[in-house]
Amino acid sequence: MGGNQLGSVFRITSFGESHGAAIGVVIDGCPAGLVVRRDVIQKALDRRAPGRSAITSSRKEKDIVEILSGVSNDVSLGTPICLMVRNQDARSEDYKNIRNIYRPSHADYVYDAKYGVRDYRGGGRASARETVARVAAGAVAGILLDRLGIKIYAYVDQIYKLKSKVPYDQMDINKSIPNALNIPDDTLYDKVTKLIQVAKEEGDSLGGSICCIIRNCPVGLGEPVFDKLHADLAKAMMSIPASRGFEIGSGFGAILMKGSEHNDSFYTDDHQKIKTKTNHSGGIQGGISNGMDINFRVAFKPVSTIAKEQTSVNTLGQSVAFKNIGRHDPCVVPRAIPIVEAMTKLVLADHYLRNKTSTILHA
Amino acid sequence: MGGNQLGSVFRITSFGESHGAAIGVVIDGCPAGLVVRRDVIQKALDRRAPGRSAITSSRKEKDIVEILSGVSNDVSLGTPICLMVRNQDARSEDYKNIRNIYRPSHADYVYDAKYGVRDYRGGGRASARETVARVAAGAVAGILLDRLGIKIYAYVDQIYKLKSKVPYDQMDINKSIPNALNIPDDTLYDKVTKLIQVAKEEGDSLGGSICCIIRNCPVGLGEPVFDKLHADLAKAMMSIPASRGFEIGSGFGAILMKGSEHNDSFYTDDHQKIKTKTNHSGGIQGGISNGMDINFRVAFKPVSTIAKEQTSVNTLGQSVAFKNIGRHDPCVVPRAIPIVEAMTKLVLADHYLRNKTSTILHA
Amino acid sequence: MGGNQLGSVFRITSFGESHGAAIGVVIDGCPAGLVVRRDVIQKALDRRAPGRSAITSSRKEKDIVEILSGVSNDVSLGTPICLMVRNQDARSEDYKNIRNIYRPSHADYVYDAKYGVRDYRGGGRASARETVARVAAGAVAGILLDRLGIKIYAYVDQIYKLKSKVPYDQMDINKSIPNALNIPDDTLYDKVTKLIQVAKEEGDSLGGSICCIIRNCPVGLGEPVFDKLHADLAKAMMSIPASRGFEIGSGFGAILMKGSEHNDSFYTDDHQKIKTKTNHSGGIQGGISNGMDINFRVAFKPVSTIAKEQTSVNTLGQSVAFKNIGRHDPCVVPRAIPIVEAMTKLVLADHYLRNKTSTILHA
Amino acid sequence: MGGNQLGSVFRITSFGESHGAAIGVVIDGCPAGLVVRRDVIQKALDRRAPGRSAITSSRKEKDIVEILSGVSNDVSLGTPICLMVRNQDARSEDYKNIRNIYRPSHADYVYDAKYGVRDYRGGGRASARETVARVAAGAVAGILLDRLGIKIYAYVDQIYKLKSKVPYDQMDINKSIPNALNIPDDTLYDKVTKLIQVAKEEGDSLGGSICCIIRNCPVGLGEPVFDKLHADLAKAMMSIPASRGFEIGSGFGAILMKGSEHNDSFYTDDHQKIKTKTNHSGGIQGGISNGMDINFRVAFKPVSTIAKEQTSVNTLGQSVAFKNIGRHDPCVVPRAIPIVEAMTKLVLADHYLRNKTSTILHA
Repeated sequence: MGGNQLGSVFRITSFGESHGAAIGVVIDGCPAGLVVRRDVIQKALDRRAPGRSAITSSRKEKDIVEILSGVSNDVSLGTPICLMVRNQDARSEDYKNIRNIYRPSHADYVYDAKYGVRDYRGGGRASARETVARVAAGAVAGILLDRLGIKIYAYVDQIYKLKSKVPYDQMDINKSIPNALNIPDDTLYDKVTKLIQVAKEEGDSLGGSICCIIRNCPVGLGEPVFDKLHADLAKAMMSIPASRGFEIGSGFGAILMKGSEHNDSFYTDDHQKIKTKTNHSGGIQGGISNGMDINFRVAFKPVSTIAKEQTSVNTLGQSVAFKNIGRHDPCVVPRAIPIVEAMTKLVLADHYLRNKTSTILHA
Repeated sequence: MGGNQLGSVFRITSFGESHGAAIGVVIDGCPAGLVVRRDVIQKALDRRAPGRSAITSSRKEKDIVEILSGVSNDVSLGTPICLMVRNQDARSEDYKNIRNIYRPSHADYVYDAKYGVRDYRGGGRASARETVARVAAGAVAGILLDRLGIKIYAYVDQIYKLKSKVPYDQMDINKSIPNALNIPDDTLYDKVTKLIQVAKEEGDSLGGSICCIIRNCPVGLGEPVFDKLHADLAKAMMSIPASRGFEIGSGFGAILMKGSEHNDSFYTDDHQKIKTKTNHSGGIQGGISNGMDINFRVAFKPVSTIAKEQTSVNTLGQSVAFKNIGRHDPCVVPRAIPIVEAMTKLVLADHYLRNKTSTILHA
Repeated sequence: MGGNQLGSVFRITSFGESHGAAIGVVIDGCPAGLVVRRDVIQKALDRRAPGRSAITSSRKEKDIVEILSGVSNDVSLGTPICLMVRNQDARSEDYKNIRNIYRPSHADYVYDAKYGVRDYRGGGRASARETVARVAAGAVAGILLDRLGIKIYAYVDQIYKLKSKVPYDQMDINKSIPNALNIPDDTLYDKVTKLIQVAKEEGDSLGGSICCIIRNCPVGLGEPVFDKLHADLAKAMMSIPASRGFEIGSGFGAILMKGSEHNDSFYTDDHQKIKTKTNHSGGIQGGISNGMDINFRVAFKPVSTIAKEQTSVNTLGQSVAFKNIGRHDPCVVPRAIPIVEAMTKLVLADHYLRNKTSTILHA
Repeated sequence: MGGNQLGSVFRITSFGESHGAAIGVVIDGCPAGLVVRRDVIQKALDRRAPGRSAITSSRKEKDIVEILSGVSNDVSLGTPICLMVRNQDARSEDYKNIRNIYRPSHADYVYDAKYGVRDYRGGGRASARETVARVAAGAVAGILLDRLGIKIYAYVDQIYKLKSKVPYDQMDINKSIPNALNIPDDTLYDKVTKLIQVAKEEGDSLGGSICCIIRNCPVGLGEPVFDKLHADLAKAMMSIPASRGFEIGSGFGAILMKGSEHNDSFYTDDHQKIKTKTNHSGGIQGGISNGMDINFRVAFKPVSTIAKEQTSVNTLGQSVAFKNIGRHDPCVVPRAIPIVEAMTKLVLADHYLRNKTSTILHA
C-alpha cells in the first residue's frame, strides 16, 4: 500500500531517498529474451541529468546505473531486474538551515503529518531525484517498445507565456533532438533561454507544459472502464513532481467544440486500414488505442524552490522567514521531458503485455 | 487484468453491459459496522438517472438497486457487498441499424479490434450506463466519508462557451442543490438551458467542465510517488466516459504564474492549525492532502451520439452514412456530476483506509 | 484487502452469505471469444449440490445460475463475467437456537472478534455454501483449459481409516465418474458408504483426503519464487473450508526418501520429448510445470457440525450445552471433489494466462 | 506477474540471481516509526548462513546487508526499504561442467522451457540463495511483531526416520536456541548429526520436516475465503525451495479423527478470555486466528544436489552421466529454520496491517 509500485504486468517498484545511499527500481514482469544493455539505460539517465544545457542548473550529478539482477550477458532472464544508482553529489549541509522549516508548496509538512518522521535532506523521498528510478525503468520498457516500432516523443510546448506554434502532428519526431526543449524552433528556444535567465536573476521560477506524441501504437491497447489507456497515462503524468494538469487529444479545448465538429469520422485508407479523418480523440477511444497518433499534454507549475526570501512556519508552527541555499533550476520543465517519455513507456509496455491475454485468439 | 477494478483496500469490481441482464458492482474491503441502508444507495442512483430536469433526456430508466450480499440488518458485515441493478428500459432494436457501423468517436471499432467480439446493443460495456456501478459503490464510500465529516461537492462550471464566474472557494456546498448544474447562479442556468435546447434542435451536442471540491479532508491522505492523491483522482476522473482533461488546484493556469506567486506560504491559524495563505496546490502537496480544500476540474467533450447524419465505415471498412435513432442527450455534463462525486468518494475512502497503516502509531 | 479475490489475470471476486440474497462471483480477465454456455456452468453446480448420492445429505438446494454479464450469444466478451445464484432453500429458523453460541471449530467466535458483527444464519460468509462461487467460476476456467486439452480429475482417496490402494498414475481419468467418491473401486465405495452410515447414526462426522491429478499440463506454467505453481495450488486448496493439509508429489513421504531415490532423472522419449523416469516432483520443479502429471493431495478434517450434544460458550462467554438442529452431512469429503477441481482450474487458467508474457517470443 | 512479490500491505519484492551482482528485497508498505537497525537484519542473515554447525556445509558466504533506502537514523520512514546483499563467494567455475545439463529435480529444464534463457550459474534465480531476500525482509517484519509481543519459533521435528517426540505445545520457545535443529533433545541431535554424516559419506542427501509455533497471536488475523491465514501460510511455506507439504494443527492426522474428537470446545478462562480446550484447529478457525497457539508443519524433500553420479539429459536432449562438483549440504532442513520463521513473520506482519481496516471501529 506504500504507493511505490506502478503497472500490472510490467510492474516497477521504486525506492530511495534523495540523500540516502541509493535510488533504484525493481522491474518484475519484464519478458525474458530482451536485449538489455547497461549503456542504453545509462544514456537515458544522462539525458535526465542536469547540466545538459544553458537552461538547466550546473550541478553535476554522476548517476551511474548498475544492473544488480535479472540480466545475464545483456539478455533479460524473465526474473526481476534491479537497477541501482548510488547517490553521490549530495551536499546535505545545504539543507540544515531548512531542517525545521516547512517550505512553501513542498512536501515537508505533509510528510511530517503523515509519517511523524521525515528525511529532510534534499526533500528525501519527495525529491525529484526519485525520477532516476522512473527513467531507468522506462529505458528498459523502451527497449520492448522499440522492438514493436512504437515511437515516443516529448517536447516543451510552453514556458510561461511563450508557446510553441508548431502543431503536434507536424512535429518530425525522427529528427535528432535539436535543443533542450526538443523543439524545431530556434527562435522560440532563444526566447525561452532568455526568459529563464531573467527568472534566475530574479531568484524566481517558471512553469510550462510538455506535449507527448506516441506513433505506431498498435490498435487495442488499454482496458475498458477503469484502466483506460489515457486514464493510466493521466495517473502516470500526474505522479510526476510539479505536474498540475493533463489533457488527451482535444483536452480542455473540447469544451469549446460541438459534437459534430469533435467526432472523428472513420475512413479506410489506401492500405485498407481503418483511420479517422480528424484526431480529436487523441488516438484513444473508449480507453483503447485506435491506431492514430496518441497525443497528450501535461502542465507543470513553476518549481517551488526559489532563491527569493520567503515566509513560512517551522515545525513548531512558528512564523519564519528563510532563503534556500545552494543550486537550483529556475525552470525544470525541460528536464521533465525524459521523465514524461519514461512514464509513457512504462504505461505502454504494461498495457502491451496486458493485452496479450485479452482474447482467446492470443491465448 | 481486465481493468474493471479500482482501489487497493476499498476495492470495487464493476460488471455489466448496457443491454445485458444487469449492471453491478462488488465492494471488497468495506469495513464492518457501517450503517448501509438500501435507500441511501437508491437515492444516489436516482440522482444519476436522466429525466431529472429539462436539460437531460426524457428516457425513464428505472434503476432499482438490490443489495445481494455483505449487509445484514442495514450493517456492513466486512464481507463483499454486491450491488445489482437490473437493466429494464432497453430498446435494443434502436441499435440494430448501427450494429455493423463504427460510430465516430465511439468505442465500437476498438472493441472489435481488441476483442474480436462486441455487444453492439447500447454500446455494451462501453456505455455510460456502466457508471451505475460507480454511483452505487460511491454511495457506500460516501457513508464512510460522512462519518468522518468529509464533504464532497461537484458542479458544472462551464458548458460550451458559458462559464461560471463564482470561484470555487465561494461556493456554499452545504446548501441544497439548486438546479441540474448544481450552481447558485440562476441566470447562468437559464442561459445554459437555452443553449442546450438549441443544440438539441440542431441535432448536435455540447461539452463542458465540472469542478469538484473536497472539504474537511484529513491531512495525510495520499501516498508518495505513484499513488499520489491527485494522481489517483486524475485516473478516476479520466476513466469517466467522455472526459478529456484533468487539473488540480491552479492546473494549467500554473503555467502563467511565477514560483513566488504560486508558492503557498504556511501560517498557523487561531486554532494552532497549520494552513496555507493561498491554495494553488489545490489541497494536495507532494501527493498528500494538506488539510486545505481539495479542488480539481474535469473537461468533458461533447457527447459522441448526435442526431445529425454522419459518415463513417462499417465493419467491412466500407464508407457509410447513418443517423442515430432514438433518445439522446445533447449535453451529458450535468449528468456527470454524481459520477464525478462518486469517483471522488471511492478514491478518498480507499486512501483513507490505506493511510491506516502508514505509521507504527496507528499500528 | 477483503481477501475475496483470487488470481492475477483470470481474477475472481466471490461474494455472498449463506442465507443472504445470493451467492455469486465476478470474473475479471476472462479472454474474449470463449464459448461460455450457461448449461455448462449449471452442470458444474449440479455436481456440487448435495443429494447426489446415498452418502451425502438429502437437502435439495436448487442452485440455478444466472449469467448477469460478460457473455453475449454464448461467447465471452472480454468484459467481467458475473455469475449469480439466488439462495432459496434457506431455513434460517434452524439457526436461531445457536445464534448466540460459538460452535466448536466453527468461525462464529473469530468473526465476532474480527468484525464486531456477524450473520449467524447458516454460517454466513464462512459457510461452505460460498463454494458455489468457486465452482461456477471454475466451470468457466475449465472451458479455457478444455480448449488446451488439459485434464483435471479429483477423487476421494481416503475416508477415516479406509484408504484407496490404486496409485494416482493408474487412475483412468477419462472414464465416466463411477460413484460419489470418483474411484474405480466398488468394494471400497461400499465400505465407505457403510462407514459414513454408522457415523451418521452416531451423530458424528468423518474426514478424509482428496487426490487431484492434472494431465497434459503444458511445460512452463508457474512463476519462480513466491507464485510457484504448487504454492498457488496449496493456497487455493487450503482456502477450501475444512482443509487441513496439502502435499505435492511425494509430499510428506519425501521425508523418508534419500536424494538419490527422490531425484527424477530426465530422459528423452520416442517423440523427442523430455520427461522424467519417476515423478516424485509431482509434475512441478522449481515451481514450474515440467509436463509430467501434476498430482497433489488435500486433507479434510471431519466436519464440525455434528448431531451429538456439545459444550461451548455463548457470546457472553458463559458455558453452554447445545445440539445442532436440522440436516447435516456426516462426511463432506465427497462433496469437496468438484470444489478441489474448480480451485485447480482457477489456478491453472490464471497461470496459463500469466505465462503469456513470460518471454519476448510470446510478446 | 513475475511472481516475485508477496503481501498486500507489507509487500516485498525479491530480486537477484545466485551468482549475479546482488540479492535483495524492497519492502513497500512498512509503517513509519519502526526502529530498524542494520545489525538486527545482519544477525538474521548470519543465522541463515551455512557453516554454523557441524551438520551444515563449510562454505563461508559473507552476506553483508546494506540498507539502501527507507531508513534514516535507524527509524523507518514509511518509504520503501531496500536491503541488498552483494554476492561474493561465488565459484561460478564449479558450474561450467553442468552448464548444459538438466540436473534431476532441479529447475534447469523448466527455466529453459519457460524463458528460453537461463543463468546456469549456481541455479540462478532458482537457487536457495534467493532466501537471503526473505530472511532480510522477515527480520524487518519481525521488528513489528516484536512490538506486538508475537513470538515465532521453528524447529526441525524430523530428519529422515528420526522424529522428535516432544509435542509442539511442550516446547519452551523462550529458551535460547540449543542447537542447529532448535530442539531441546541432545540425544536426538546427536543421532541426527551422525545420520547426516553417513549421508554425506554416501554422497546422498536427506529430507525432513520443520514445525513452527506462533504464540500470542492476536485474535482476528486472516481474511475469510481466499486469504485465510493458514492459506497464506501454506503458500508462503510451499514457496520455499524443496518444500513438499504443509499441514496446520491436526493436519493429515485429522483424517483419522471423528468430529466429536476433533472439535475444539470453547471455554472461558480465569481472565475472562475465550479459549479452546483442545487445539486441533492449530490456532486458526475459518481462516482467522482465534488466539490459541498457531502451529503448522512443513515437509522438505532431500536436497536435489547430491555427490553421487547421476544420469540425465543435456540441453540437446541427449542422455548424459554427470557428477556435481564442489561443496554441498547433505541436509538443508536445519538451514530452513530461519527461512520458515522469516516467511511466517512476513505473512503475519501483512495480515496484522491488513486487519487495521476490517472494521469501522478501527477506521
